[in-house]
Amino acid sequence: MPSATEQKIIDAAVRLFAAQGYDATSVQEIVAAAEVTKGALYHYFRAKDDLLFEIYRLLITSQSADMDRIIGLGLPAAETVREILVSLVVSTAERVDETAVFVRELHRLGEERMAEFRAERRRYHETFLAVIEKGQADGEFSSVVPADTVGRIVFGVVNQLPMWYRPDGPKPPASLAGEIADFVLAGLR
Amino acid sequence: MPSATEQKIIDAAVRLFAAQGYDATSVQEIVAAAEVTKGALYHYFRAKDDLLFEIYRLLITSQSADMDRIIGLGLPAAETVREILVSLVVSTAERVDETAVFVRELHRLGEERMAEFRAERRRYHETFLAVIEKGQADGEFSSVVPADTVGRIVFGVVNQLPMWYRPDGPKPPASLAGEIADFVLAGLR
Repeated sequence: MPSATEQKIIDAAVRLFAAQGYDATSVQEIVAAAEVTKGALYHYFRAKDDLLFEIYRLLITSQSADMDRIIGLGLPAAETVREILVSLVVSTAERVDETAVFVRELHRLGEERMAEFRAERRRYHETFLAVIEKGQADGEFSSVVPADTVGRIVFGVVNQLPMWYRPDGPKPPASLAGEIADFVLAGLR
Repeated sequence: MPSATEQKIIDAAVRLFAAQGYDATSVQEIVAAAEVTKGALYHYFRAKDDLLFEIYRLLITSQSADMDRIIGLGLPAAETVREILVSLVVSTAERVDETAVFVRELHRLGEERMAEFRAERRRYHETFLAVIEKGQADGEFSSVVPADTVGRIVFGVVNQLPMWYRPDGPKPPASLAGEIADFVLAGLR
């Protein structure tokens, strides 16, 4: 969990990166918008790309924790997949600014941060694919379409969400999440 | 259809934009790589963002023509959707450099070009959604999940493809396309 100061810095950075882009935003502007000192910012973040990575890390950490919690319930595969999808779509929709900034500026990450990002994402994907594969092995899901392609489809719609989702749009996150889960589960049967 | 010179310029621009980014690529470098004169480039493209747009326009024009041709065959909805998906996934995978460049640099388009891009994309999406809606109205497809969400899922995986697809990967475009079509059709039943 980030401290209150850290969270203020992150919120200000997300707002500024979303509004004017990562490159065009200076550390000075973030400091001013967050109403903290430059020293406070550098206490938490050595560089601007640390801040970009932290925006993502907070999101994936909470999404991973949600997935682990759901898997821990030991429900049948279909219910597990539904719960994971709903939680993933809703959390992505609710933090659409963070995800949009991160996706757009991803290529700004340095090599080390990029490797860390890939490892975190891989772990998340592999845990999800293991749920699908187990459902296929148990005969609860069809095996016609390999789990990796099911994963590409699921993460495709989630990762594209920041490109079109608007918080003031007609469909609340929970309805959208339910529809996506319905479709994916129909495809898996 | 672009002329041979125009195509040489576009191919060089795609290679350079993919390798070093849009911003870092000068018109001079494109001219040198394409082995054409600066005058020839400016004959076809007034500015660098014209070139970026043209990369996309050639792709969507050919994809739209494919979709119109398939719809014109008058096949049942399921076969129509399968043909459209296979053609869309294969053409995107085969031109993954073009799509990757375009997706990454999309926000560089000027206002006019952006409006044109949105209109082209909207037309493509709406034509596809009409096929789904007709299949739902005729009872060939389930209506549980609204067509707009089916579209988000389909265009999600296609638009994310440049993020992970590698031409030297283990799965040829046609196999991947077949698996995606199988999954989407299972979801629609």
